[in-house]
Amino acid sequence: MQPDELEAALRDIGARRYHRLHPFHHLLHSGKCTKGQVQAWALNRYYYQAMIPIKDASLIARCEDSAIRREWRSRLVDHDGDMDGEGGIARWLKLTDGLGLDRDEVTSLKGLLPGTRFAVDAYVRFVREKTLLEAIASSLTELFSPVIISERMDGMLSNYDFVTRETLSYFDKRPPQAARDSDFALDYVKRHARTPDAQGLVLAALEFKCSVLWSMLDALHHAYVDPKHVPPGAFVPKDQ
Amino acid sequence: MQPDELEAALRDIGARRYHRLHPFHHLLHSGKCTKGQVQAWALNRYYYQAMIPIKDASLIARCEDSAIRREWRSRLVDHDGDMDGEGGIARWLKLTDGLGLDRDEVTSLKGLLPGTRFAVDAYVRFVREKTLLEAIASSLTELFSPVIISERMDGMLSNYDFVTRETLSYFDKRPPQAARDSDFALDYVKRHARTPDAQGLVLAALEFKCSVLWSMLDALHHAYVDPKHVPPGAFVPKDQ
Repeated sequence: MQPDELEAALRDIGARRYHRLHPFHHLLHSGKCTKGQVQAWALNRYYYQAMIPIKDASLIARCEDSAIRREWRSRLVDHDGDMDGEGGIARWLKLTDGLGLDRDEVTSLKGLLPGTRFAVDAYVRFVREKTLLEAIASSLTELFSPVIISERMDGMLSNYDFVTRETLSYFDKRPPQAARDSDFALDYVKRHARTPDAQGLVLAALEFKCSVLWSMLDALHHAYVDPKHVPPGAFVPKDQ
Repeated sequence: MQPDELEAALRDIGARRYHRLHPFHHLLHSGKCTKGQVQAWALNRYYYQAMIPIKDASLIARCEDSAIRREWRSRLVDHDGDMDGEGGIARWLKLTDGLGLDRDEVTSLKGLLPGTRFAVDAYVRFVREKTLLEAIASSLTELFSPVIISERMDGMLSNYDFVTRETLSYFDKRPPQAARDSDFALDYVKRHARTPDAQGLVLAALEFKCSVLWSMLDALHHAYVDPKHVPPGAFVPKDQ
């Protein structure tokens, strides 16, 4: 494939496999979730958010090129911020605060679904163990995140009276960051994946990452959408 | 031990084991090295410099505390800089340039001593595999670096006509960075190593790190100081 054909194939994976298509997101964005279900979503997704800088530092830790490390470092800044209370993780906790969840309960991870943990941990392990090309390619779901974020903002603000713009401040910041990051990653894989083997690895990495995000929502859907099957030890919403 | 006793024990390790005491440094700083020996030192030490951000990102990658990750991130900034040509690695390459080494030869690592590679790789592995406490403690050689750097600057500038202040710009920047970093790491180990077992691990981590630095100079001394024993494939100075 030529680089632009590879890009088209990557975008096609997004069109078919990105978690924007997941039934749970349809419920969430169209106002069909209970507050408890929104809480469960935010509490589980917190683990993903909390592990993102660990994933990104793992990528930097295997990268011998100072320029790529420097570029990737901006992701650490985005998520950890420059001081306490700043950055994506802190903004995610504003969301869980706004939804009425106890912050210590969220950060303790006690109510986390095992399916969320295993999916997120698989992502971190993928980035640590696969090639740098695959690790970078696995970040490419960010190509598709601006659309889902705008749907989520609009949908949640208009459909839930317990959600405010401030609660959702995490999502305000993400689209430009995601666009910058996915531009870099897309350019990298287009330049470095020039053989059929390498292009196959890149496509598989993006499919893998789509599966991570999809699997997290599957676990959530199975546990919290009727008929509910909350596994032992997992978060139980008060309105359930 | 009380925290201050632990600090005293750490400083005692530095007084006995830090590579400031290594015979090669006495030669280097007192003007007794040939230009070829100074080149060999800078070329080998380049690998240490190049791996430092990889070591630091490895530490960040295992750290669940956003505040510690944020603090440690400043080390990535110091070494990789904010743009091309900035940061500690780029400044180290100014040193190897100034010593007349070919930059591609330096960065290719082709002439590196195996002993340098193994010591540096052992350090990175230590930070990846030991506890976070030990990983942080292993950075504490920076407590002792301002003194050796000032001895090196003075000694090399007054003793070698092929060394200029600009060539040594790497060392200008390091003392305040090292002081900030070692203050943080020392405070961390004093607060977190409160049992005899934990304190033993902290002391052993610093001894380990002193051994890494010492071993690098042993390899250099054995290869390049009379009677020379340059191993197959390693850098051979033109003046040898």
